[in-house]
Amino acid sequence: MKLASLKGPARDGTLVVVNGELTRAVSVPGVAATMQYALEHWDAIEGRLRDVAASLAGGAERHAIDFAAALARGEVAAPLPRAYEWLDGSAYLSHVERVRRARNDKVPESFYTDPLMYQGGAGDMMGPRDPIRALSEDWGIDLEGEVAAITGDVPMGATPAEAAGCVRLVTLVNDVSFRRLIPAELAKGFGFVNGKGANALAPVAATPDELGGDWKEGRLHRPLECHVNGRLLGRPDAGVDAAFSLFDLIAHAAKTRELRAGTLVGTGTVSNHDERAGYACLMEARLVEQVASGEARTPFLRFGDDVRLEMRDGAGASIFGAIEQKVERYRRGAP
Amino acid sequence: MKLASLKGPARDGTLVVVNGELTRAVSVPGVAATMQYALEHWDAIEGRLRDVAASLAGGAERHAIDFAAALARGEVAAPLPRAYEWLDGSAYLSHVERVRRARNDKVPESFYTDPLMYQGGAGDMMGPRDPIRALSEDWGIDLEGEVAAITGDVPMGATPAEAAGCVRLVTLVNDVSFRRLIPAELAKGFGFVNGKGANALAPVAATPDELGGDWKEGRLHRPLECHVNGRLLGRPDAGVDAAFSLFDLIAHAAKTRELRAGTLVGTGTVSNHDERAGYACLMEARLVEQVASGEARTPFLRFGDDVRLEMRDGAGASIFGAIEQKVERYRRGAP
Repeated sequence: MKLASLKGPARDGTLVVVNGELTRAVSVPGVAATMQYALEHWDAIEGRLRDVAASLAGGAERHAIDFAAALARGEVAAPLPRAYEWLDGSAYLSHVERVRRARNDKVPESFYTDPLMYQGGAGDMMGPRDPIRALSEDWGIDLEGEVAAITGDVPMGATPAEAAGCVRLVTLVNDVSFRRLIPAELAKGFGFVNGKGANALAPVAATPDELGGDWKEGRLHRPLECHVNGRLLGRPDAGVDAAFSLFDLIAHAAKTRELRAGTLVGTGTVSNHDERAGYACLMEARLVEQVASGEARTPFLRFGDDVRLEMRDGAGASIFGAIEQKVERYRRGAP
Repeated sequence: MKLASLKGPARDGTLVVVNGELTRAVSVPGVAATMQYALEHWDAIEGRLRDVAASLAGGAERHAIDFAAALARGEVAAPLPRAYEWLDGSAYLSHVERVRRARNDKVPESFYTDPLMYQGGAGDMMGPRDPIRALSEDWGIDLEGEVAAITGDVPMGATPAEAAGCVRLVTLVNDVSFRRLIPAELAKGFGFVNGKGANALAPVAATPDELGGDWKEGRLHRPLECHVNGRLLGRPDAGVDAAFSLFDLIAHAAKTRELRAGTLVGTGTVSNHDERAGYACLMEARLVEQVASGEARTPFLRFGDDVRLEMRDGAGASIFGAIEQKVERYRRGAP
């Protein structure tokens, strides 16, 4: 089952069930008006949502709208338009290794057993066609392509096996980062506040069963295609080199507290040891260039640039729809 | 005007207007069912909420309930039972200085001009009488008494003066910390995930005008009384030694992103340079003992201990009501 949210009438958007091909969608006001409501009442309403999905697949939902057209018009919000928690791990240690190697540093041994994770802002998730907005290009604007799980309630101390049972949906994230602000902020020791912007989510989120054999033990075994201004930046496989599964990361986040329905847990930037896979963020390309030639040539994002993140199944069909964002100068009051 | 939330029927609770003496409260379903709704529609409904407050003060709200009794029965939630963002600053540098001095370290100069701040979990704010729950006493359970602002929408790049206009409510926070988990977690460099538990808020949140002359330029000039097991731990004045105002901290949090209505920004642990004021967390007492005598004698919290945080006005009346929490071993499914 695939779910999405249309923008409005209120900040949580309007939940819609989307067909597998991402062409048609139907709202379900009698079942769940919003994604947050659906997540809080999942056990009670999942069956009814699946009935709607089956009916939609059979062409029997006559109030269905053209989802692709709504997406093109910018009417699609993030599947979860705002989340109470955004906890982002670092499952792909080749990403961490490249960052450290560029500064002649090693990855601490503990990172291979104890996941690196930060808590980020999630009160304003961008829709898949919303612009990335910043006040200055000097911030070093970068994308970060990730896979994320949206959870139900998770008890404190949940094991990875228990966390598996709490994953309701899977989607893609663009975790926007301001690279030139990060070193000074991390040096203060308390993590990211200014160094990260709002995140964007893919057009739809899918239940794990919808992912079939590509979803194995909390890892999604498909390449994440990342383009910048129409050029391929990379297509690292999210199932390769993931030191931690999303189940491990959820269990880590829940070690000392309960996570509530609607928590978003990310894998960190997808990255493979094999450099031929390319990258899901500009910084990694720059770090590899710097080590190889002494100079980073790939620029960070500038106003007017666009990014595209997408994942396709084995038959070439888009699983979650594409995140396609243009970088813009922030202006107050702009939508 | 003072506002609170009763628990239920859903996770966001039920908004109530509370009288100045914290004895009576009335729900306002025709105006705003929840605090989150009120914050999102503040300009449209503030006047109507204030009319209810005036009517309540005049004794004319015949559906008012006994708020003190509801509080005693554990029926009062946090004023904002869950928040989309919890951004906690470090306004009181005597707190930071004591931490650093105990490890023979200095506070970096930049901390006096660029606030230290972390993003924490806020999807589950504890009510003022809810238990602090942990799986182990070995975590080093500690309270942290703070003042916090609840904001409306804040534009990216807002100045402190603009942030001032975005403060809707002020309240107290108990930012529960697990001291023995923090050093290893901070060493990883990405801030707090396991080192902090859920936070509790005071029974009510008050509009800035309600605080009268005690609220000056984003600082609340009253002592925060902190008790552990009935013994005074400290009463540091929140208006003294605050290097940053809540306006400064909101502006810092909004440097690179918009903050949405319902964002909670904290001062960090209230702390005064004058040791006679005592402390708003156990760790500071321990660090001062360690420097003075080579040994920390004040224990962290154990199961069965209780903490109390309260702030009184010049006439001795409780401004926000008291946070009173017992420490318990976490059990799944317990309320």
